[in-house]
Amino acid sequence: MIPEATIRRLSVYLRCLRRAKARGEDMALSSLLAHRCGVSASLVRKDLSYFGGFGIKGKGYRVDELIRSIEGILGIDRPIRVVQIGVGNLGSAILRYLQQVPYFKILAAFDIDERKWGKRVGEVEIRSCGELGEFLRENPAELGVISIPPDGVQDVIDTLWRGGVKGVMSFALAEIDVPEGMVLQFVDIASELEFLYYKAKKQKK
Amino acid sequence: MIPEATIRRLSVYLRCLRRAKARGEDMALSSLLAHRCGVSASLVRKDLSYFGGFGIKGKGYRVDELIRSIEGILGIDRPIRVVQIGVGNLGSAILRYLQQVPYFKILAAFDIDERKWGKRVGEVEIRSCGELGEFLRENPAELGVISIPPDGVQDVIDTLWRGGVKGVMSFALAEIDVPEGMVLQFVDIASELEFLYYKAKKQKK
Repeated sequence: MIPEATIRRLSVYLRCLRRAKARGEDMALSSLLAHRCGVSASLVRKDLSYFGGFGIKGKGYRVDELIRSIEGILGIDRPIRVVQIGVGNLGSAILRYLQQVPYFKILAAFDIDERKWGKRVGEVEIRSCGELGEFLRENPAELGVISIPPDGVQDVIDTLWRGGVKGVMSFALAEIDVPEGMVLQFVDIASELEFLYYKAKKQKK
Repeated sequence: MIPEATIRRLSVYLRCLRRAKARGEDMALSSLLAHRCGVSASLVRKDLSYFGGFGIKGKGYRVDELIRSIEGILGIDRPIRVVQIGVGNLGSAILRYLQQVPYFKILAAFDIDERKWGKRVGEVEIRSCGELGEFLRENPAELGVISIPPDGVQDVIDTLWRGGVKGVMSFALAEIDVPEGMVLQFVDIASELEFLYYKAKKQKK
């Protein structure tokens, strides 16, 4: 079984590899991949060894082959269908960013503020949160991204769950009853910064 | 030595505990903490066991005691001094959020768009990116948060490093020469979503 930490890094490697491919690079050395992804070369080699060695000594990995392998493991053989709930500053930034990533398809965004309904962020239309349940019945989504205040998160989670969404990322820490079979991931920037502070302090002066 | 994954979760527990304290709760059961943080109760107990057992059987952990212990381990005995570079949608959202967290002190924000200079997001003044180096000489900061396009990241990293900043979080994936002794952490929402998708697919139907 591949460790979760490895899976998490695979998608970072994937992003680096796609950038390398776009620049016309055929081969990627583990040292270069490591440098670009901010991990050690030995860790890159260890991670990639979990699914067979594609590296050629002194030349590195075939970029195309490695991209296809990682995509296969992550299951990204077609775009991941996403709905976004909450179109404030953070929600808008996420919407704009994800629209640049080809293997995500943002189906729609939802907000409680009626002044936003019918407007677009990039190509994505903003709808009323009240429409979320019905929308999902007609437009199945795999993931939901939530960037609303904590108090509203439980209701949104429940609606997403009833609509068949199995994975949710929330930028608001909230005490949630997570339906069994749903994966909820919090992204908390304050926690990430604390962790960074801890690591930075351990560095040599 | 405490594993990094544990340290990372400690700051999530800390956030849950502070919310519990604000609600007037004196004790926190590992099961409740686990539920609120989205991990298993056994993992909470294992994580907390690394720095001695504070739990009381059947009653859980003393909230105050646990908060102080975790703060001690993370080294948050005074506010962490942060500068933010890039005040677009994402940067504004981060600025607003971090100002709500008492143990961060956002010293200033920096942007290249001169129309933003002198304005404020909440209490934080926006300055010219050109002032960053001089600002840091007079106002030492521990962490930098970067939310600008990839092309500009290296210059900002170098300026932060010369200004004594040891830890940087970047929301733009970029190929960076990280100065030795600096910790750079990328937060890439697309990678996080891919990882979530992978985990959600593994769930039972």
